[in-house]
Amino acid sequence: MCRWLAYSGTPILLDELIYKPEHSLIDQSRHSRLGAETTNGDGFGVGWYTDPAVGPLDPDETPAVFHGVGPAWSNRNLHDLASHVRSHLFFAHIRAATGTGTATQESNCHPFRYKQWLWMHNGLINRFHEIRRELMLAVDPSLFPSIEGTTDSETMFYLALTLGMENDVPGAVERMIGLVEATAARHGIPNAINMTVAVSDGDRLWAFRYSTERATRSLFYSTDVDSLRALHPEVGTLRLVSDETRIVVSEPLGALSGAWNPVPECSYGCIRDGQDEMHELVPQAA
Amino acid sequence: MCRWLAYSGTPILLDELIYKPEHSLIDQSRHSRLGAETTNGDGFGVGWYTDPAVGPLDPDETPAVFHGVGPAWSNRNLHDLASHVRSHLFFAHIRAATGTGTATQESNCHPFRYKQWLWMHNGLINRFHEIRRELMLAVDPSLFPSIEGTTDSETMFYLALTLGMENDVPGAVERMIGLVEATAARHGIPNAINMTVAVSDGDRLWAFRYSTERATRSLFYSTDVDSLRALHPEVGTLRLVSDETRIVVSEPLGALSGAWNPVPECSYGCIRDGQDEMHELVPQAA
Amino acid sequence: MCRWLAYSGTPILLDELIYKPEHSLIDQSRHSRLGAETTNGDGFGVGWYTDPAVGPLDPDETPAVFHGVGPAWSNRNLHDLASHVRSHLFFAHIRAATGTGTATQESNCHPFRYKQWLWMHNGLINRFHEIRRELMLAVDPSLFPSIEGTTDSETMFYLALTLGMENDVPGAVERMIGLVEATAARHGIPNAINMTVAVSDGDRLWAFRYSTERATRSLFYSTDVDSLRALHPEVGTLRLVSDETRIVVSEPLGALSGAWNPVPECSYGCIRDGQDEMHELVPQAA
Amino acid sequence: MCRWLAYSGTPILLDELIYKPEHSLIDQSRHSRLGAETTNGDGFGVGWYTDPAVGPLDPDETPAVFHGVGPAWSNRNLHDLASHVRSHLFFAHIRAATGTGTATQESNCHPFRYKQWLWMHNGLINRFHEIRRELMLAVDPSLFPSIEGTTDSETMFYLALTLGMENDVPGAVERMIGLVEATAARHGIPNAINMTVAVSDGDRLWAFRYSTERATRSLFYSTDVDSLRALHPEVGTLRLVSDETRIVVSEPLGALSGAWNPVPECSYGCIRDGQDEMHELVPQAA
Repeated sequence: MCRWLAYSGTPILLDELIYKPEHSLIDQSRHSRLGAETTNGDGFGVGWYTDPAVGPLDPDETPAVFHGVGPAWSNRNLHDLASHVRSHLFFAHIRAATGTGTATQESNCHPFRYKQWLWMHNGLINRFHEIRRELMLAVDPSLFPSIEGTTDSETMFYLALTLGMENDVPGAVERMIGLVEATAARHGIPNAINMTVAVSDGDRLWAFRYSTERATRSLFYSTDVDSLRALHPEVGTLRLVSDETRIVVSEPLGALSGAWNPVPECSYGCIRDGQDEMHELVPQAA
Repeated sequence: MCRWLAYSGTPILLDELIYKPEHSLIDQSRHSRLGAETTNGDGFGVGWYTDPAVGPLDPDETPAVFHGVGPAWSNRNLHDLASHVRSHLFFAHIRAATGTGTATQESNCHPFRYKQWLWMHNGLINRFHEIRRELMLAVDPSLFPSIEGTTDSETMFYLALTLGMENDVPGAVERMIGLVEATAARHGIPNAINMTVAVSDGDRLWAFRYSTERATRSLFYSTDVDSLRALHPEVGTLRLVSDETRIVVSEPLGALSGAWNPVPECSYGCIRDGQDEMHELVPQAA
Repeated sequence: MCRWLAYSGTPILLDELIYKPEHSLIDQSRHSRLGAETTNGDGFGVGWYTDPAVGPLDPDETPAVFHGVGPAWSNRNLHDLASHVRSHLFFAHIRAATGTGTATQESNCHPFRYKQWLWMHNGLINRFHEIRRELMLAVDPSLFPSIEGTTDSETMFYLALTLGMENDVPGAVERMIGLVEATAARHGIPNAINMTVAVSDGDRLWAFRYSTERATRSLFYSTDVDSLRALHPEVGTLRLVSDETRIVVSEPLGALSGAWNPVPECSYGCIRDGQDEMHELVPQAA
Repeated sequence: MCRWLAYSGTPILLDELIYKPEHSLIDQSRHSRLGAETTNGDGFGVGWYTDPAVGPLDPDETPAVFHGVGPAWSNRNLHDLASHVRSHLFFAHIRAATGTGTATQESNCHPFRYKQWLWMHNGLINRFHEIRRELMLAVDPSLFPSIEGTTDSETMFYLALTLGMENDVPGAVERMIGLVEATAARHGIPNAINMTVAVSDGDRLWAFRYSTERATRSLFYSTDVDSLRALHPEVGTLRLVSDETRIVVSEPLGALSGAWNPVPECSYGCIRDGQDEMHELVPQAA
C-alpha cells in the first residue's frame, strides 16, 4: 500500500503540494486515512520534468528522480529539494511495503523511469512471488536489463513498455492487465491485480484505476481550480495557477469536498492542457 | 516519544523479545498503543552485554550497540542480529522524533554508551533548544568530547555521569533531574522533564519513571515469570528462563494483565539477581 | 581532508562541473591528486542558489542543500539532481573524515547553511576535540541552537557568524582565525588551523586560504574563461558561459595549466561580476 | 572488484581479522594493493555461523549476515558487531562496484545466503548485462524468488544451487562455470568468467579460483599457524587458535611471506578440520 500524487499545470515548487496542504502527502506518510496501512514509511520518491521555460539545453533530457529509503517525513534532502525545485509536471510517492516482503531499497522506490517515461503505482499483483519469474520472462529482452528492483510495480511498467506503451499508453496498460490476469489465472490466483497508476511522457499525464475484483484503491482528481483554492487556503500558490492545472491523488489533500472527484472504478483519464477525458478501462489479451 | 525494552536474566536471543511477542517492540514501532505517537519510525537501537558464559577475553569490554536511522520494522540487519545474538542483559529502543526537530541520525539513537554504561530514554526536556547550551556547559569538560549527538536524552546521560553516576546511580539521576528543573525554572519553562530511563553497568539494571508534572510516560515491569509464560505462549523461550528474569517495557508486549506491573509515578527500581526494590524518586540539588 | 568546488557565473547544470570534467570532483572522490587522502568517500554535499531568472517567489528563500553520507561517486540521487538543477552560484564538497574520528552523518556534511549563507571547508582545527567545548562556548547563544553536527568546520562557521560575518565577511573570518589561534595557544596546541574556505550570501563568493603554519591545503581559481574552454573541451557548456564566470577548486579539474591560478598562501578573494580581487589574510583578535 | 576473507578454526572475535591485522580488510577497503581498484567502498558484508559451543537452540538456524551500503571503513555498527561477535566460521567482504553499473544496495552485498549456505565472490561475468536474462532463466523456478539483487555474483550462486550444490559443491561450481562459459560463447563474449569464490554450509569451507582467460584475481590461504603468528604479532588472538585454523584472503593481511600461499590458477580447496586439499577446477557441461 502506498500513496501518491501527480501534478500537471502551472510550474510550482514541489513543496506546495507535497508539504503545505493540510493533509499533505507528508502528513499521509504518517497518518493515511484511506489506505490499507496508516503508515507509509518504507521509502519514497519524487520525479519531475524540467519546466521548459527554464530552457533545457539537452533535447534528450530525461525527467529527474529522487529516491530515499527512509520515511519521507524525516528526510531533509526531500524537504530542501521540494522547496527549491519548480516543475509543471511532477510525481510524488510514499511507500508502504507491508505484506510484500520486498526490500526497502532505492531501486524499489517509485516513480520508476525509462527514457522520458515516469510510472508510479499503488496496489499489488496478488501472490506476485509465484508468478514473478513468468512475468519477467514476458518482458522484452531489450528492456530486461533496465529492471533494477524486485517489485510488482516495476514489472508492470516494463510489461506495459513491452506491450507498446510508447505508442499507445491506454492500450498497453490494458494489455498489461490482460497479461497479468491471464498469467494469474493459469496459476489459479484470484484477484490478480489491484492498481492505481500514473504515467507520463513529460507532455501528457495518464491516471488509471483498476482491479480484477472491482475493489480498487482510492483515487481522486481535481478539476475546478477555484474549489481547490477555497479548500486549501494554506497553499497560497493555488491562487497563481492556471485553470488548466490538475492534481491526481490517492487520497484528498484535505477535506473531501467538491474539489476532489473520485476516479470511477475501472477507468482512466488523460490530462493535457486541462482537457479531462475519462474512459472505461478494459483488459485486453496481450 | 519513543518505546523501549530492557531485559535482565537468563541469556536469550534478542529476537525472542524484540520480534516474537504478540505486541512486540517491532509491532509497537508501527502501532504503539500507549505512546504519544503511534508510529516510532525515526531510528532505533539495541545494546547488549556479552553473556559471561561465552567468555569475553577482554575485561574492559564495553557493551555492543547497533543503531539504525530507518524504521526498525524494515531493518534486515536488526532482524538478523537479533536472531543470532544472545545476551543476559540487553536494551532495545525505537524512536519517534516528532516535535523535537532533532535529526534522524545514528548519533541520536539510543541506547547511548559510555564505557560500560548504557542509557536509554523516553520522554523529553521541555523546550530543550532554549536551555541546551546551558545544560551542555554543565557537563564535565572531560566528558564533553564524548557527546556525539544533539538530543536531550544524551545530554541527560552526560549530566548524570557528571553528577556521579559511576558511584551512585539513583543519586546522580536525582541530581540530574534537579539540575534540569532548576535550569528550566530560571528560564521560566514549566514541566521541565518527562522521562522513563533505563541504565545499566552490565551488572545491575535500573529503571526510572519521573516527570515534573507527575504525568510520566508509561512504564511496566514483569515480576512473575510464570504469568509471563502464560501470557506469551508465542515466546517459547520464556519456558526456559529463570525465575529471576525481569523485563521492563514502555508498554506491555501483549495484553495488560497481572504479568505487567506499572512502575509507580516518580519512582525507580534496581534489578539484580531477581531482587525487585522500588523506591521513591526525589530530585536533588545538583 | 576534503575537496571542494565553488562556481559563480552564467547558470549551468551542476553536473557540467561536478561530473563532466576530466578530473571532476567525482573523479577526485576516488583519486584525489593533491589531497592528504586519495579517497574522499565520507559523505558529500552540494548547495545552490536558485537562478534569479527562474523567479523565486519567496524573497526569504535560502539556498538549497543536499547532503549524503555515502561516497559521492555511487550516489544516484546526486547524479540525477546535478543533471537537472541549474544554478549561477553553487558549492560542491566531498569529505574525507580520516583522522578526525567525526561521525559520517548528514549533519557533518558541507556545505553548512545559515539563513542565506553557505560555508564549506577543507582542512582542520588541530586537536579540535581538546578545544571544541571552549570554541562552542564562544558561539553566540542565539546561534548555538543552529549547530547540528560535531565538526570543526561547522564550529568555524558559527564563530565567524558570531564575529560579524553578516556585515563583514573577511573581517569576521580573520577574527575567527584569531580566536581559534588564541584558544589553541592557551592549550599549547601548535599549528592551530588549516583551512581553505568558501563562503557566499547568494550574491558574492569569497574564498580563503590560510594556515597557522603557512602550509595550507591547495586552492585554485580560474580567471580566463577562454583558457578553461581550451583545457576542458569535454565540458561543452564552457563555450556558453560569460567571461565573468569563475570557478574555485581544491585541485584543478584537469591538467594544471594557465587556466588555474593558485590562491596565494594566507590570502583571500571575493568574486562578484567577474571582478577578481586578492587580499592578504591577517588573523585578528576576536 | 572486491576483497574478501574467510575464516575457519577456533572461535574468535571477528575484529581480530577484519580490523586488527596490519593490512586488514578495513585497510584494504581504502588501500587495496593487489586489486584492480584501490578503493573498495561500495558496500560490505559479514556472515557468520554461531559457535556451536554457545548452543544454538534452533537446529534450522541459518548463518547471520550483516550488510551495509556505505564504506566499511566508517561503519560504526560493523566495528561494534565485529568486536562483540565470536565465530568459528565467518566471511567478510568489501565491494567495489566499478564498471558494473550495479546499484549500491544491501541486496547486492556479499555474502549471499540461502538456507545454511553462504557465498561470496570477487570478479565478474564479462558483459553480464547481455546474458543476465538468459542466466536467470536457467535458475530453477523454485529458487528464482530468492534472488533479491542484480549482481552477477548472486546469479552465479543460484546457478550453482540449481546445478546441485547442496549435494556436490565442487561439481556444481564446475557446472555453473560451464553454463556461464557456454552462454557467453553463444553470445560471442570472450573471457566469460573471472572468480574467486568462497562457499560454506557451516561445516566445511570451499575456496575456488578460476577464470576463462587464466588470469584470475589473486587468492591466498594460510596453512602454518606458527608463521601467521610470527607475521602478525598485532593479532594477539593468533596465539590462542588451534593449528587447524585456516584463513583464505583475496590479498594477504600483511607482508607476503611464507605464511600466505597462493591458490593456484584454476583450482579449489576444501577446508575441514585443518585438512587442506587442493584440486584442479575443470568446467563441466551443465
